[in-house]
Parts: sequence; structure tokens; C-alpha cells
Amino acid sequence: MINGLTMDDYPLSPTAVVERAERFHTDKDVVSRRPDGSITRTTLGACAHRARKLATALTDLGVSEGDKVATLLWNQAEHLEMYFAVPAMGAIVHTLNPRLHADELTFIVGDAQDRIIVVDESLLEVFDSFRLTHHFDHVIVVTHNRPAPAGMLDYENIIRDAEPIQWPRIDERQAGAMCYTSGTTGRPKGVVYSHRSLVLHSMAAALPDALGVSTQDTLLPVVPMFHVNAWGLPYAAALLGARLVLPGSKLDAVSVLDLIETEKVTMSAGVPTVWMTMLDALDAEPNRWDLSLLDRLIVGGAAAPRSLLEGYDRHGLTVVQAWGMTETSPMGAVSRLPADLENCDEKTKYEFRTRQGIAMPFFDIRARNEDGEFIVWDDNAMGELEVRGPWVASGYHNDTGADNFTEDGWFRTGDIVRIDSRGCIRICDRSKDLVKSGGEWISSVDLENHLMAHPAVAEAAVIAVPDERWGERPLAVLVLRTGMTADTVQLREHLSTEFARWQLPERFEFVSTIPRTATGKFKKRDLRDQFTA
Amino acid sequence: MINGLTMDDYPLSPTAVVERAERFHTDKDVVSRRPDGSITRTTLGACAHRARKLATALTDLGVSEGDKVATLLWNQAEHLEMYFAVPAMGAIVHTLNPRLHADELTFIVGDAQDRIIVVDESLLEVFDSFRLTHHFDHVIVVTHNRPAPAGMLDYENIIRDAEPIQWPRIDERQAGAMCYTSGTTGRPKGVVYSHRSLVLHSMAAALPDALGVSTQDTLLPVVPMFHVNAWGLPYAAALLGARLVLPGSKLDAVSVLDLIETEKVTMSAGVPTVWMTMLDALDAEPNRWDLSLLDRLIVGGAAAPRSLLEGYDRHGLTVVQAWGMTETSPMGAVSRLPADLENCDEKTKYEFRTRQGIAMPFFDIRARNEDGEFIVWDDNAMGELEVRGPWVASGYHNDTGADNFTEDGWFRTGDIVRIDSRGCIRICDRSKDLVKSGGEWISSVDLENHLMAHPAVAEAAVIAVPDERWGERPLAVLVLRTGMTADTVQLREHLSTEFARWQLPERFEFVSTIPRTATGKFKKRDLRDQFTA
Repeated sequence: MINGLTMDDYPLSPTAVVERAERFHTDKDVVSRRPDGSITRTTLGACAHRARKLATALTDLGVSEGDKVATLLWNQAEHLEMYFAVPAMGAIVHTLNPRLHADELTFIVGDAQDRIIVVDESLLEVFDSFRLTHHFDHVIVVTHNRPAPAGMLDYENIIRDAEPIQWPRIDERQAGAMCYTSGTTGRPKGVVYSHRSLVLHSMAAALPDALGVSTQDTLLPVVPMFHVNAWGLPYAAALLGARLVLPGSKLDAVSVLDLIETEKVTMSAGVPTVWMTMLDALDAEPNRWDLSLLDRLIVGGAAAPRSLLEGYDRHGLTVVQAWGMTETSPMGAVSRLPADLENCDEKTKYEFRTRQGIAMPFFDIRARNEDGEFIVWDDNAMGELEVRGPWVASGYHNDTGADNFTEDGWFRTGDIVRIDSRGCIRICDRSKDLVKSGGEWISSVDLENHLMAHPAVAEAAVIAVPDERWGERPLAVLVLRTGMTADTVQLREHLSTEFARWQLPERFEFVSTIPRTATGKFKKRDLRDQFTA
Repeated sequence: MINGLTMDDYPLSPTAVVERAERFHTDKDVVSRRPDGSITRTTLGACAHRARKLATALTDLGVSEGDKVATLLWNQAEHLEMYFAVPAMGAIVHTLNPRLHADELTFIVGDAQDRIIVVDESLLEVFDSFRLTHHFDHVIVVTHNRPAPAGMLDYENIIRDAEPIQWPRIDERQAGAMCYTSGTTGRPKGVVYSHRSLVLHSMAAALPDALGVSTQDTLLPVVPMFHVNAWGLPYAAALLGARLVLPGSKLDAVSVLDLIETEKVTMSAGVPTVWMTMLDALDAEPNRWDLSLLDRLIVGGAAAPRSLLEGYDRHGLTVVQAWGMTETSPMGAVSRLPADLENCDEKTKYEFRTRQGIAMPFFDIRARNEDGEFIVWDDNAMGELEVRGPWVASGYHNDTGADNFTEDGWFRTGDIVRIDSRGCIRICDRSKDLVKSGGEWISSVDLENHLMAHPAVAEAAVIAVPDERWGERPLAVLVLRTGMTADTVQLREHLSTEFARWQLPERFEFVSTIPRTATGKFKKRDLRDQFTA
């Protein structure tokens, strides 16, 4: 007790979230689509109750406080049960991305020292690709069609006869979850989330100016639950009592649109690629789906081009941009149009909505230029964004990557940004993707966004290529839409409405696909290897 | 670092709120109505900046960490500056209720050991009534028309030349604010709020299912800032960037309605009495005010009768009921109609909306019957509500009132409640107000609400009076509307549509006013003294 303080020392923990789901939101649906396309239904209450049985089963299998339990699962009710059970019992749920290369998965499970893994039957092949490289005490399989392979346990079997535990009281600064960075540079690095960070992040994400989650909502996270806490949506749903629709492995546009319609989804969240393909489907068949209950689509993980927002506006659907990273849990900023811009012209509105947004409460931001000076918030000066807050990492697992943090403990994001007077962030580039030509910076992101606004362009990635005269010059790699054409002259003309002459790329390379990381980001390193050889 | 945890240890503190106001919400209006009715305008940014100068001035006057600084102020920008400066500098802001009796104020400032007091010029008379009973190191006056009296300091003078400080880093469990219970039973008791509790409370209050505060909002707290953190609204506004309209001392219906209209208020909050008189004004002149931007009125501090909700519904305005106490910061529960009741009949909807609501996230509830057993959540069993959570008291200042807390640390609210299967609280009575007749409980609150639904009844308070045969019987004290009449037979007939015969009061006392506490609650003790003599 400090200064005669008389407040309860109640821990901020997913335990409270799980208990709330079981007590207050018992009957709220949790809908899962299985790999075969079938739908199963359960409730938040049932998942929370089963989590208490799962915790007993995991304890019986030797899991104790601080142990890592890995998941290789889709967005499905069992994954939610793992989100519930593992932190609340005092262990650490470590979500693995099945789209990573076997070598990366090998590194990650070894680095984390995962003791047990829970695998969906449909992901056993992925598991086979790295299982022999690491010793798991137990492998638990969520089965659908066939029994668990010999030597592995069946998820339902271990839960069936287990007694539901009473959750222990846990220090809110204890670790509860873990996720690895996508590792576009160097080895993936582990981020370990505290109980406190997990729930503060989800509560802040639920605020009206962020994702605005309420008991009226039905959430469909297209963003995978193996990807940075699924942007906080599972805990937000359980805390606020929103319905949860978990789309499993089938994330093609038609499947997602069908699910949004039939399950009366009010909010969905995913990376730009998902919404781009979905927009194509909507443009092709604008009257096929009744999406009248769909209130907002959250886009994050990569910058959304204006054309994406415009496209959805045509269908009466609102896309809201959010920004974050593995190191920030991930939600850091959301781009909601401020009240005073509501009556602005379209250009100003889109200009704002394509920004990364305003930092959430308790999420501190600043940016530093090359000379290490803090930039002014004038929407002009550029610098690397540094952040801190209750759900921001202050280091990595096993003490790697210390140079990603400043001496005073802020996380260096690697994003080069401008910040306007109201604190709205605009990412100009990744520090390593910025093009420096003749001593001036050219933003590859700005070029990409404007190229993607061209009707013939499906995808665009801009990289820096060495240039004898200018140091670096931008090079554009393009995927054209089927049946459409555009040449260098047309594309330069298109860009010249927004960019100075010296900023225009000289080289345009036309390809059939642009390589992407497991989390959907352009693999610019690969492009550089290919086009700067 | 526990278990290799890598999250930032960022303190949850009003400091972050004040910094955010200055950085992100600089230009958001803070409107104050002065005692003479004039309007002054400043901004969140200016208040936050002046708070840094105020902190220097207070430090120069001898305020150091843990000291209590009292306020005797209305809802006005200077009060907001005190909310900002005092906790952020490490001291404790202690809000005094000017409507309390001088004896109570004397007790309170002595019990708290306030070192400095900031008084609005219009409240100097109140201050004079207790100033000689306690030594204040300094008295600071917010002046409007005349200079500060001799021996007192002028608020503007001490700020004018002070340097703005850089806020120190503060332990989030440190005390930041203080408020006394209204003391309907026994001495007022001090509740000391931690930095953490203050901001978690305001963040939770801003969630969509609670008050739903966003940057689009203009908030008008009719609830005084001297009354339990003004329900969290000042910090919520600063955190989320809402405009703030502070109505000062003039809280008559026409003044408030004028302010709502001219300042484009979207949300207001106050006790039922305020909304009752405002409803009368609206009924009298339904077309006088344009309230089209007013999205919701929050009612709390006492139960709102159905007639109040119905009355506002007639004007197309939504009243949302909230529940809390000084010991709970105060927001504990909010009664928002759940999605599955939206298509119900009117009676069911009002029945739900007049409940005290569903507990907010991280706010744990349970209730115990007379035998000390926890009641089931079947909407039938009754028990005393017990609560705990990050913004709930676990004790009082100076270790008083220990019997208000259970052995395992829950706060005993004194409210007798039923809880339904979704966790919605319905207060049947204060434990001391419940009528026990022939071994059965009769709810005075239910009787009052139904009496107030009678067209001739303006106000109704029901108390228990001793009865030889039944132990206790209910007695109704009524204020009739001007020019209207109702007799005992009519009122019993009115009640008999909802209540069993044995529950109907035999005695009805007609009075011109019902005495109220300084916070607007019926003084039932006084009624019992008057009518059971």
C-alpha cells in the first residue's frame, strides 16, 4: 500500500476474460468452419468450460507454469480453447505459422523450447516436415476424419474425462503467449506477451476509435489466430461478448463472403491481399451477397492502397486501416476519419484513411531522423518510428535483436514515417525499402499505392536498385490484371500526376506473381536478388 | 522479468492521459459555463499545458508526493487542470462536495489532512463555513469578478509565470485521487484511487457497451467533478479526444438544454433528478430545443424509473442506466439492451433497461443471501451484491469501515440484488431499506418505481415502519404533481397491477418535498425519523 492506497490489486489477465466468457457470455456462438467446409457450432461458455478441462489434461501431461505449448491450428474453436486454457493455467501458448518453411519452424520450436504441440489433422503434413528436428513431450491432434496417428494423443480424448480446474491467481506480469516475427530480415525473433499486455491490448482494441467491439458484434477474424494474437480479436470477443466466426483454412473470397452473409458478420479483419481478392469477387457479382450487416472491414499487416478503400466504398462497405507489428501485440494505430474531416473533399478523406492512423491510448510514438533527432509532427519531416506502451515489447526472447530497442527502452519499428499535427502516422517506407536517389528519399510505398490505383495493375512492388549516377533508383515490379495491358510510358504518365519527374521509376518489370512471405508481405529481398543481379 | 517476459513496464497513469491530451487532442474544446452564465473556451491541449505550469506552482507552494490537494470547484476548466496536474505530479487530488454540511466538510478535510485547497470564487461562502476548523497551508482562489481575498492566492497568478514541468514517472499503484462516500450511514469514509484504477476505470467506461466514448463525442458531465471522478468522463475525454462541456453551477433544466443544443453535445450524464426536471421542461416545450445530435443520456447514482426512460423515448432520446458507488470509482455496470432483446416487446425492454446492468469487463460480481451462501443467477434469488476489480476499493482511508469488506477482499455494496442468467444486476433495495414483512422481503425500490409511474406522482420514497403484527410494513411518502390528486385507494389500486396484496403499503404520506442528500439521494433516515416517531 503506497500513500494509504485502498484499491484492489486485481490482476489484469486472460483468466478474467475466460471467466467472463463462462459467466456472462455463455450462449454467444463460436462458429468454426472445418477443413472440409462443414460448419460446427459451440459457444463462448462451452469453450471456456472446456478450457478448464483442457488445463487439467495439459497439467496431467506435465505442463507446468512457464512451459510453452505450441499450436499448429487454423482459426477454429479448439484454437480459442488453447488461447483460453494455456495462459490461464500459467503456461505460454505459442502459435506457429503453418505457412512458414520447415527450416524456420524447426528454428522457432527449438528457440522457444516448446514442450507440447497441438496440431489440426489437416496440418499433420506440415508438422511432419519439422517434427523430427525437435523433441515434443506430447503431440495432440484435433481429429476430424481419422484417428490420431500412432504415438499421438487425440484432443477430444484428453479433454473428455478431465475435471474442470479452478483457475489459479496469476501475476499479471507473467508470460501468457508467444509469437515469432516473420523474419523478413535475419532469423525470426520471439516476442513473449504478458498477461497484462494481452488483455490491455484487447481492451484498447475494443474502444470505439479502434475496432469498436461490442456485444452487438459478430467478428470474423480472417487474420489467422497463429498471427500475433489474431489482432486481439479472440480475447476482445470473449471480454465483450461478441459472436465469433472462425473461418478455418479456406480463405478464398467466395468462402469468406458466404460466411459473412450466412453468419451475419458485422466486422472482419485481415491483410490487404484478402480484401483485394474479395473486392474482385464483389465487383464480378455485386448482387450475389447480402452484406447489409457488415459494418466494417479492418485492414492491417500491410498498407492498404486508396484503390482498395475506394473499391469497397463503391459497395457501401467501410474499410478501416490499422497498423501494428508482432512486437506491438500487434494493434498500435487505427485510421478512423476524425470528426473535423467528415465534410472534407474525397481526396482529403482518402489521403487520411490510407494513413496508418492515430496511436491508440497508452501507445506512445515518436520518430527520429538520420541524425538521431526527433522529428516535428508537421507531416513533412521523416524519421524512423519508435514506440512504447503496455503492450509493446521491450526485448526479444533469448535476448536477441537488442539493437531493435533504444537505450531508453523504445522499440525501433523500422518504419519510416511522417507524423501530422494530430499525431497521425503515415508510413513512407520500411527503413530498408526506402529509395535514396541523389540524396533525396523516394517512398516505395507511395509509388506502389499509386501504381495499384491504375486500372490495369493488380499488384505492384517497388524496390531500390543501385545506380551509378544517383546512388539508387526505384524499380517497379508489376502484375497486370488478366486481359489488361499497360506500358512503361502509360505508367509513368499515370504516376506523374502525383510524383515529381525525378521520382518516377525508369524500369518496370512485368511478372505473373510477386513472391510473398508467409504473412502476405512482398518478399522484397527476393525481388532485389532477381532484378539487381 | 518473469518467464523471459519481454513486455514494456509502461505505467497505467493519468500522466499518460494528460500527455495524450497535449500531444494528440490539442485543439479539442473545453467549454466552461461560469457562475454568471458566461461561456469561456479553452482546449484539452491548453489545459494539459497549463497543468504542467500548475504543477510547478503547487510544488513551489510545498506540495510533494502523496500530499492531498483539495478542490472546492464546479465543473469548470480549472477543475480539469487540477484533475490533470495533481495526480501527474505525484500528489492526490481530493474533490470536496460543496453541498455537504459544514460539519461534514470539517470532518472530511481533517480526516484527509488536506494541505492546500483550490476554491472557486463563487464557493468562498461555503469555504468560510469550515475554513477555521482546519489548517490549510495555502488557499488558492479561481477568481472571476473580484480579487482573491487577503491571505489567499489567485489561481491565475500562481500559474502565470510558472515553468511547465516534465511529468515524473510514477508507480501506477501510487494514489492519485480521493473522494469521500456520501455517508448516508455513519461518518463519510475516504476512498483513495490509484493511478492505475483511475485510468483503467476511464478506459473501461469508454468501451462501446459502457458509455462508448470516442473522438466524435462532445461530453457534458452534469454529474459534478467533485462527485467520484465525474464517473470517469474527464479522463475519458482527455484519453479519447472528446470535446468537454463543463456546465458549472447552473444545472436547471433550461440551462442544461440550452448548453446541449448550442454546444452540440452528444452525451450527457447525471442523476435521475436532473433528467426528471429536464423531461418536464421538454414535455412543456417539445420543440424548443434541437437535440438531434444528442445520442445518449447516462443516468446513475440512483435507480431510474421506467417512466423516465419512457418519457425520453417519447422525445426520441435514449437514456442508459449505469450503476456504481464511490467505492467502485464509480462505474460498475451499464444497462445496454442486449442484441437478443432488440426485437422483444416494450415491457421486456423496459424491464431490462431499468435494471442496473451488466458488470463491466474486469468487474467481478457475486451476491450472498442472509445465510452467507452465494445466490444463483436465476433472477429470483436475492442477496447482497459483492464486487471486486481493478477499480474497486479494498479498504477505506485511515482503515475505517473494515466490515464493508469480506474476508477474501470483496467490497460489500449494501445493495440487495437479483442477478439474471446473463449476469445483469437488478437492485431490489439497499440492505437497510428493504422491508421485511411477515418474514418476506418487500422491495421499496420496486414500489417507488411503480408509484412514480402514476401520472399524479412526481416523487415517491418508500420506507419500512415497525409493525406489531408483521415486524415491518412499507410506508409511502409522496410528492404529487402540481394540480393533480391521488388518494390511498387509487394508489393501492395502481400498485395492485404489479404487486401482491400483502406488499401494498397501508400508509401514504403526502409531502411537498422529500429530503435529499447532497448527492441527490432520498434521505430515508430522515423520513424514518419523521414517520415512525
